[in-house]
Amino acid sequence: MSSIYNGNIKISIFGESHGTAIGAVLDGIPAGEKIDFEQVYLQMQRRAPGKSEITTERRESDRPKVVSGVINGYTTGTPICGVIENENIELKNYENLKDVVRPGHADYTAHVKYRGFNDINGGGHFSGRLTAALTFCGAICRQILEQKGITIGAHVYSIFDVFDDHFDMEISKKLLKRLSQEIFPVINPEAKEKMAKKILQTKSEGDSVGGVIECALDNVPPGLGAPIFDGIESKISALVFAIPAIKAIEFGAGFAVAKMFGSQSNDSFALREGEIFTRTNNHGGILGGISSGMPIVFRCAVKPTPSIAKPQDTVSIKSNHPVRISVSGRHDPCIVPRAVPVVEAVSAIAMLDFFKEANLL
Amino acid sequence: MSSIYNGNIKISIFGESHGTAIGAVLDGIPAGEKIDFEQVYLQMQRRAPGKSEITTERRESDRPKVVSGVINGYTTGTPICGVIENENIELKNYENLKDVVRPGHADYTAHVKYRGFNDINGGGHFSGRLTAALTFCGAICRQILEQKGITIGAHVYSIFDVFDDHFDMEISKKLLKRLSQEIFPVINPEAKEKMAKKILQTKSEGDSVGGVIECALDNVPPGLGAPIFDGIESKISALVFAIPAIKAIEFGAGFAVAKMFGSQSNDSFALREGEIFTRTNNHGGILGGISSGMPIVFRCAVKPTPSIAKPQDTVSIKSNHPVRISVSGRHDPCIVPRAVPVVEAVSAIAMLDFFKEANLL
Amino acid sequence: MSSIYNGNIKISIFGESHGTAIGAVLDGIPAGEKIDFEQVYLQMQRRAPGKSEITTERRESDRPKVVSGVINGYTTGTPICGVIENENIELKNYENLKDVVRPGHADYTAHVKYRGFNDINGGGHFSGRLTAALTFCGAICRQILEQKGITIGAHVYSIFDVFDDHFDMEISKKLLKRLSQEIFPVINPEAKEKMAKKILQTKSEGDSVGGVIECALDNVPPGLGAPIFDGIESKISALVFAIPAIKAIEFGAGFAVAKMFGSQSNDSFALREGEIFTRTNNHGGILGGISSGMPIVFRCAVKPTPSIAKPQDTVSIKSNHPVRISVSGRHDPCIVPRAVPVVEAVSAIAMLDFFKEANLL
Amino acid sequence: MSSIYNGNIKISIFGESHGTAIGAVLDGIPAGEKIDFEQVYLQMQRRAPGKSEITTERRESDRPKVVSGVINGYTTGTPICGVIENENIELKNYENLKDVVRPGHADYTAHVKYRGFNDINGGGHFSGRLTAALTFCGAICRQILEQKGITIGAHVYSIFDVFDDHFDMEISKKLLKRLSQEIFPVINPEAKEKMAKKILQTKSEGDSVGGVIECALDNVPPGLGAPIFDGIESKISALVFAIPAIKAIEFGAGFAVAKMFGSQSNDSFALREGEIFTRTNNHGGILGGISSGMPIVFRCAVKPTPSIAKPQDTVSIKSNHPVRISVSGRHDPCIVPRAVPVVEAVSAIAMLDFFKEANLL
Repeated sequence: MSSIYNGNIKISIFGESHGTAIGAVLDGIPAGEKIDFEQVYLQMQRRAPGKSEITTERRESDRPKVVSGVINGYTTGTPICGVIENENIELKNYENLKDVVRPGHADYTAHVKYRGFNDINGGGHFSGRLTAALTFCGAICRQILEQKGITIGAHVYSIFDVFDDHFDMEISKKLLKRLSQEIFPVINPEAKEKMAKKILQTKSEGDSVGGVIECALDNVPPGLGAPIFDGIESKISALVFAIPAIKAIEFGAGFAVAKMFGSQSNDSFALREGEIFTRTNNHGGILGGISSGMPIVFRCAVKPTPSIAKPQDTVSIKSNHPVRISVSGRHDPCIVPRAVPVVEAVSAIAMLDFFKEANLL
Repeated sequence: MSSIYNGNIKISIFGESHGTAIGAVLDGIPAGEKIDFEQVYLQMQRRAPGKSEITTERRESDRPKVVSGVINGYTTGTPICGVIENENIELKNYENLKDVVRPGHADYTAHVKYRGFNDINGGGHFSGRLTAALTFCGAICRQILEQKGITIGAHVYSIFDVFDDHFDMEISKKLLKRLSQEIFPVINPEAKEKMAKKILQTKSEGDSVGGVIECALDNVPPGLGAPIFDGIESKISALVFAIPAIKAIEFGAGFAVAKMFGSQSNDSFALREGEIFTRTNNHGGILGGISSGMPIVFRCAVKPTPSIAKPQDTVSIKSNHPVRISVSGRHDPCIVPRAVPVVEAVSAIAMLDFFKEANLL
Repeated sequence: MSSIYNGNIKISIFGESHGTAIGAVLDGIPAGEKIDFEQVYLQMQRRAPGKSEITTERRESDRPKVVSGVINGYTTGTPICGVIENENIELKNYENLKDVVRPGHADYTAHVKYRGFNDINGGGHFSGRLTAALTFCGAICRQILEQKGITIGAHVYSIFDVFDDHFDMEISKKLLKRLSQEIFPVINPEAKEKMAKKILQTKSEGDSVGGVIECALDNVPPGLGAPIFDGIESKISALVFAIPAIKAIEFGAGFAVAKMFGSQSNDSFALREGEIFTRTNNHGGILGGISSGMPIVFRCAVKPTPSIAKPQDTVSIKSNHPVRISVSGRHDPCIVPRAVPVVEAVSAIAMLDFFKEANLL
Repeated sequence: MSSIYNGNIKISIFGESHGTAIGAVLDGIPAGEKIDFEQVYLQMQRRAPGKSEITTERRESDRPKVVSGVINGYTTGTPICGVIENENIELKNYENLKDVVRPGHADYTAHVKYRGFNDINGGGHFSGRLTAALTFCGAICRQILEQKGITIGAHVYSIFDVFDDHFDMEISKKLLKRLSQEIFPVINPEAKEKMAKKILQTKSEGDSVGGVIECALDNVPPGLGAPIFDGIESKISALVFAIPAIKAIEFGAGFAVAKMFGSQSNDSFALREGEIFTRTNNHGGILGGISSGMPIVFRCAVKPTPSIAKPQDTVSIKSNHPVRISVSGRHDPCIVPRAVPVVEAVSAIAMLDFFKEANLL
């Protein structure tokens, strides 16, 4: 039912792709946190389209208007509402799609759920554009975490069959910092070149392509999270799947544990200067739903942009007849790079939630 | 913080592995639902240890005492509390582990979170035994869904390098029914034999082994779920990660979407007798967080049982010194088969939650 | 922590009295509800200041901008966000109050909670102005309830020692309709005249005065609500106390039950045309937290506006010295009439929540 | 829907009056809290029937079995489940009431809500007996608050027309301590005698009688609570109305504020040894939903026990005919004294919730 996240911090997201505005209310942020809204804007720019030839040409300034909860750059402790006005809207592109459900989109499922009353222009409330609101919230949460020593960074791990390096066991803060500022972040610059080439080639064919994002949260103190329903995997995965196009997630060794023996997958505990750590990180920094102090590492799969120029078979829900469509308009051939800051953002939201639960805010 | 699931239906789970009892309160089930508690018990027996030579020899009757919410086999509409008394407990096995954190277990993370006050015997509240409470709740939810035509079934898709068949595009209700009654459910009986062999071999080496479970929910009506925070992937994944040992989940084509073009991953809509369906099911029955009417299909990875006889390096948290341990006691060499009914159970909980949200109860 | 109401419907409220804007996100309203926003505006005008000489002269157009969730007058099923821009703001009146906590206001308690970071201008997030957001949400909920035959109306039951009539046992729908449209609603017009006189006299003395509001919800079907934590009294009272200045609430006979015998307070059940009703309504339409089908009736006490011209003793939190203040500015000598539509609004929110829980939406 | 309290701490209540057992799961209590379960039992004994001739003769040992969450007297941090077995049950008394709805009880409303499937014996889940579970939880919360210097106590303020003294502005900790240990707590011992006489007289007439309970929470630090939806009045009132038979609540001066001028109701701030306090406490320790540091004081009205021997008119829901009943069985002529520890208990739950929200646990 709900576009409300009701954790220890709370978020309410509103808006439609081609409506007046979208936005978010972020509730539960403590008073007195200094927030640099230029940094927030930077994160939103990383997600925004039109940043390079490999992304859609729709331009959004995406500069959020902070209408409450902040005075003189400090949080007041009451709800922070950010409103992002919709600009540069072309409704005409969707006119012909009014009764044709686009494959891979939520057009059909939303039509059924809302009995035809939903806003279909640009995907309405289901548009990837709504992730701008997530990014806004996450960018605020991230700054508070940074004050506490936590660094969050993600990279494009793969596009189709082109792979970046994996994170090392020990992730440098500097690397995460760099990744978290870039438009198309990869560990190995060569990978990026090949990925971009793959994307442009796909674009030229009127097609789109998917990929994998790998994210790390460094310096998370041990003891955060909870057993059963409120474990770290549960919260992060629930929030990551709030991002349209994500179809899979794995923590630590992930699916690879299925091909391991216990003697391989168990991470031995050891001591370094009196501190407990593990020699390997198959557990991805999480044991029993609770942080171990090792980096939290996860990967998630992003499906190819469903809007493609190539002709596709589908159905008219008005006439109940098969039709064939080509989705024109401004679409990314690959949304993986733009999804990176969103994955970082929801990770920051999840982590701040755990900090609040643990009385660390 | 919380062992409470606070969805449209609500669950409160309590208990420790070696305490007096474990159990669950299931709140929000409508009045007047006929529940066959022998079927509930059957599901709990599927999960219980001691069912075959490939599982632990600890015997649990696991017969839950239903202390509230049911009269004459019908739900009253008020909370259903099931209490499962702990029997056949041997505390001595854990005596020597009091200050030694077992690799792959939550001993260390729980110790930090609860500052040493947690019950460590048998893993306490973190024990896999707590999944009996999940199974109890799920078995009730499942029966209500069955009355509405929904069938849920899962199978052991892989153990190490031994694979069962995948679900077909069209999943027979009969197959799901069969799987949901078996102790070691597979689609292809030959796979089971090879898997069992692999498990026994691993056991003989004092080791354990992981695997993948594939689950399907058939005949789910389109239009269930919600955008942003309450999508089907979010709810199912959050609940699946409530099961200890799960490290990854993927829906539909899952991670494979990362190696697809949009023209491949998009599932074309088509018509059959006036009904809309998709010709492929890469979306796993979920678009925009909402059910499409196609079977909901997901896979999750189960890590090898962390308790192994093989010696492992770890640390004493009392003396802060490295130690070497061999975890003796009654342990499964592979918990994948026993996790199958739990995966089905949490799927049923998630689905009933969506039914309630959609006013279908 | 939270300005989020997380019931079966959900509300997120944001904004500060003298900030950019205030507003609300209303989440969980079904798709396809026709909303007349002129009626919403009418309700907001009933609450707005400047409507008569007995209310503050600050003028607010209070016309909300609906930025999401509604197309062509119908709800889309996704979150409805209403933004109310703050106009006609005079910050200077609060300059001298920056370190002086006003008696009867939240200045001191908010200062402690937010460690001095809260927005103090006009009371910030604690301002009565935030009730405009509640009224917006309630006015939408009310229209949906009206479609289902529910009528909600309230009146000024008393101002100081001047009393209006009580609701009769059988409340006419026509009366409730009339009350719910008026600026200063009373049952007996003579009472209004005397009340207005009392208020103006109080104003002339630089003082303010309190009163009681009585509210009724008519034609509520029996069987709504729940035992223990989610009863009707619990939900309505929690929402009524969200209105600043409310200090007491009573349902049905209320405090009078304390001076009754069981044989008096018990409402006999009887039959009329095959329908069960009660001959009296001491229970205020609620038994065991659940609606009985009789009108739900409650009264709540509104304290005198704390902002008064009369000099008062207080404290400077900067210098930690006693000071004497006179609160100048535009203030109501009595906020009881303006609180009436807000009490109706939160009643509508609570009732729609129960409708949703009972699958009646 | 729900017998789950989902605040910063969480409670799940289950059971029916004449079922196998009732109980509660208390979730979110930090690890390492020392709980004296004899004190918990003492509080439950205060609530239990059969303690004097003025209460029902049904005897309940009410000794809860703590099945989880506590080891060696210390909380483990995981859910605390207390099970109270139902003893001394006489189902026969309810045989003849199977189709006759008792005036003042939830028989009719529950019958409608649960479509006849609810457990009617002894009121089922609606029985006052369920308050034993609330008392269990509250008694644990109270001990943790006491460690932090908070004292909670309540007294029978009135029975019919017999009144005890009010709390003074400054409430002695010693007085609250005394009240919180007694079976029939009053400030002025003479009042008790007169009250008891009134109750016994009422009993002899086959009738019952109501009263008012006044409760105070002393030494609550300023700054707890929140604006809008999570204020102290909202949370306390919602929890107090979870107690069957409560029909009204008022904080501080309560309904009396309606007959005050602002110059009277405003509590002046003043300084004492550098600490801010108010000279009067009309605000009942709460401003803007947030604690001021003054004692939190509220009163609530308890209706007369609905079960009375005197004949009453009602209806058979089977035959849909009017009938006349006399409710026999073991019933209190006045439940006000027994409700006192329950009011204290829910106050403790509410306050601990605010402590948790404010990171004070």
